[in-house]
Amino acid sequence: MEKSIDLNCDMGESFGHFSFGYDEDLMTAISSVNIACGGHAGDPNVMERTVRLAKEHGLAIGAHPGYPDLEGFGRRYVEYTPEEIYHFMIFQIGSLQAFCQIHQVPMTHVKPHGALYNAAAKKREIADAIAKSIKDLDQTLILYGLAGSELVAAGERYGLAVASEIFADRTYQPDGSLTPRSHHNALIHDPKQAVEQVKQMVLKGTVCAIDGTLIPLVADTVCIHSDHPQAVHFAKRLNEALWNEGLAVKPIRERC
Amino acid sequence: MEKSIDLNCDMGESFGHFSFGYDEDLMTAISSVNIACGGHAGDPNVMERTVRLAKEHGLAIGAHPGYPDLEGFGRRYVEYTPEEIYHFMIFQIGSLQAFCQIHQVPMTHVKPHGALYNAAAKKREIADAIAKSIKDLDQTLILYGLAGSELVAAGERYGLAVASEIFADRTYQPDGSLTPRSHHNALIHDPKQAVEQVKQMVLKGTVCAIDGTLIPLVADTVCIHSDHPQAVHFAKRLNEALWNEGLAVKPIRERC
Amino acid sequence: MEKSIDLNCDMGESFGHFSFGYDEDLMTAISSVNIACGGHAGDPNVMERTVRLAKEHGLAIGAHPGYPDLEGFGRRYVEYTPEEIYHFMIFQIGSLQAFCQIHQVPMTHVKPHGALYNAAAKKREIADAIAKSIKDLDQTLILYGLAGSELVAAGERYGLAVASEIFADRTYQPDGSLTPRSHHNALIHDPKQAVEQVKQMVLKGTVCAIDGTLIPLVADTVCIHSDHPQAVHFAKRLNEALWNEGLAVKPIRERC
Amino acid sequence: MEKSIDLNCDMGESFGHFSFGYDEDLMTAISSVNIACGGHAGDPNVMERTVRLAKEHGLAIGAHPGYPDLEGFGRRYVEYTPEEIYHFMIFQIGSLQAFCQIHQVPMTHVKPHGALYNAAAKKREIADAIAKSIKDLDQTLILYGLAGSELVAAGERYGLAVASEIFADRTYQPDGSLTPRSHHNALIHDPKQAVEQVKQMVLKGTVCAIDGTLIPLVADTVCIHSDHPQAVHFAKRLNEALWNEGLAVKPIRERC
Repeated sequence: MEKSIDLNCDMGESFGHFSFGYDEDLMTAISSVNIACGGHAGDPNVMERTVRLAKEHGLAIGAHPGYPDLEGFGRRYVEYTPEEIYHFMIFQIGSLQAFCQIHQVPMTHVKPHGALYNAAAKKREIADAIAKSIKDLDQTLILYGLAGSELVAAGERYGLAVASEIFADRTYQPDGSLTPRSHHNALIHDPKQAVEQVKQMVLKGTVCAIDGTLIPLVADTVCIHSDHPQAVHFAKRLNEALWNEGLAVKPIRERC
Repeated sequence: MEKSIDLNCDMGESFGHFSFGYDEDLMTAISSVNIACGGHAGDPNVMERTVRLAKEHGLAIGAHPGYPDLEGFGRRYVEYTPEEIYHFMIFQIGSLQAFCQIHQVPMTHVKPHGALYNAAAKKREIADAIAKSIKDLDQTLILYGLAGSELVAAGERYGLAVASEIFADRTYQPDGSLTPRSHHNALIHDPKQAVEQVKQMVLKGTVCAIDGTLIPLVADTVCIHSDHPQAVHFAKRLNEALWNEGLAVKPIRERC
Repeated sequence: MEKSIDLNCDMGESFGHFSFGYDEDLMTAISSVNIACGGHAGDPNVMERTVRLAKEHGLAIGAHPGYPDLEGFGRRYVEYTPEEIYHFMIFQIGSLQAFCQIHQVPMTHVKPHGALYNAAAKKREIADAIAKSIKDLDQTLILYGLAGSELVAAGERYGLAVASEIFADRTYQPDGSLTPRSHHNALIHDPKQAVEQVKQMVLKGTVCAIDGTLIPLVADTVCIHSDHPQAVHFAKRLNEALWNEGLAVKPIRERC
Repeated sequence: MEKSIDLNCDMGESFGHFSFGYDEDLMTAISSVNIACGGHAGDPNVMERTVRLAKEHGLAIGAHPGYPDLEGFGRRYVEYTPEEIYHFMIFQIGSLQAFCQIHQVPMTHVKPHGALYNAAAKKREIADAIAKSIKDLDQTLILYGLAGSELVAAGERYGLAVASEIFADRTYQPDGSLTPRSHHNALIHDPKQAVEQVKQMVLKGTVCAIDGTLIPLVADTVCIHSDHPQAVHFAKRLNEALWNEGLAVKPIRERC
């Protein structure tokens, strides 16, 4: 049986006349795409185009809901109650479902964005609101969450299929959480090292934390960033390296 | 066979802490509800509550998409292209479908709002964009449009079920269009006269224009306004008067 | 020398077609008005009208900036940095200054709104950002802040005139802070008791905390709420009661 | 006496995490800048930074108000009444004035953006609303408008200093209006030809229309676009060519 890994990327984050990310170029190097739903970014025109392109590239399509804070790009915390989060999740996922419907392509997963993703990794009541919204709307959707997080745990509690997400270019702390971006060695700048980290995670199920500790980690899908000029190059390189190691780059659902 | 007529009302037009309309009181007097989708009004919290209440009252539930212009409440024209209108229609209807989905209640119809409704009554390319969006998303949805308008014609061209909407409290011009609000006798202030107008439209299929001409008119559904203090009283009175004339107040789909 | 007290009220919090508050009726019962600046509420049309009405009623006019979160009405915390807060303070106060300019009426004060007011009461870096924005823009403006709060302290550090605000219908905790609204006796429902509390604060400089402790409190201005049906009646009653006690209801600047 | 011409450019059109235009690079090649005011683009953080940079580069600073339609980038018509336009002009100009105030740099002019600029070129009531807003707020501000347009006429009617704007890369129709972008030869792609057109306009006061007619044209300021990758190169080249012809590139106010 072939081993495989999913490479996912956030896309459709342009807005009106504002362009964001290298979406189309990256589509050749990944296996699944998380499309912004008009909350933190995206608009109906962008959503339609992104779903259409993703379908053409044969990618697994997911919703990428976030705090409805366009100015902050969903990257800052907003004090929404769990009930309000549940409601805007329904709203955002539903609006993307409609674009999948007109293009007759299935939606396969949901990955929360930015500050919502981070809050859901730590706060159980937020993680539960998110998991419940997916359960209520379409329980066949896979929930993407940070490996080892409250969000993954909530997905399992609600009986959803979950995908544990790992990061190629971020370092980890001994407790398995990401090193905060404010920390001086939060980022892995060397592409070679990033590729090595992913290989170790996928093949051995471990990662080396910043203090040297070897910690276990479930790795179902790798987050590829779309907004960096080198993103396309890095994604292609990672994709190639994984195949060379005998690891198929494939959406979660197509795994054996 | 019983004759029947639908009374529809725009609802869910509150936003955040801003309250709008007498939704719950009116629900007892009507048969179908058009729920704002976060474009000209409404937000995910309001949408969820309105769908839930409408289901409890056994009303037919429709989407009420409009120009995404909260400040203008969708009542002013914005120069969207037909393609952009098609996209935001998909977005808005899709987001309401999701709230119907979690409450396990079908969506039955779509009625465009305000300036979009008016533009679609006159401009074929806008009417077509709207009809096509419904056809592509769910061709079982009924399209509500102004009786005799381009929107009704577009719906028929696209093979949709259509409902011709009439107004109880507005006067008509000899060509069948509504007298513009800027005109001094655009509105019918006497509730008795309004009830008589509706009865004539439904039972005889005619209306008396402002110049006295008797003109033919298809009448499937009556628009009830929600934002007037007397709205509730008027709706109940109209409802009662129609039943007294042997006209059942019922959603379009339940008609014989 | 006559003793006096300011009664202030948040106004101009309507938006587009959404009406909020009983602005015009309340203007006869207060001495200063804090006008929303298009952040948490208000829009250019509302701002113009509110400045014009306030001028006609001879009220002291202030800016009422808040988190730019219309859906949340500025009542929920948003993770803005102090620098971002400084910038939107400049933006919001500046836009209101322009409406004062065209009506040739001075702006006299600034009172932050909702979650921003609360955050500034406790967090020094937010209080400083607010005080600095006023200092840089117009150092003659009076800063309104919760009596005993970090915001009042920041205003003093920046050399601004400050006004300590008290609440007629809220109870206080032994440390001088407001009892949170989630607490069962956070609110004073009896108008008579509310009037007594204000008189004690203004005349004796003390308030009786919920545990019975008598605590000192500076009282320069009383917050009158605008969004309650009984607000107008209460404000008139309080106004009358204060004059009857020999306390003039006057803006801060007109005090002896 | 030295002849001079102003080169102006729209800037500060980024929003939140969305970057737009090559602002800083272009600042070395122009003499005045029109800064977006949070209507069609821009936000308080962007406005502060752009005012600061413009001051550092010694540029004349103006406001660049537009229809408050971020999704449409102010490039589509929205049915605002003249009174509403007057109000949002006051709001937007006022907010930029505040950033000039904190940086202690004067605001010198106002140039409407996009669809508002185009509407004001043709519709007298919109042009009047704009001119009146400037007159009421600060009558020393120079109004930039399309050469020969209703906006320039309105400015003169209201006693404002006006600057007639010309375009280097757009062709003209025999009536002096710009050839619509939908027309196949609306744009001048050859930089050399663009430079020649500007020189002819400034030195001879004429332009050659698309049908070959030579028409008179007042030329006070040249619009430089900021959002094209070649914009910086073109602006530098034009700047150099003008100086070589003995034409000083200078803000309007510094002209002899």
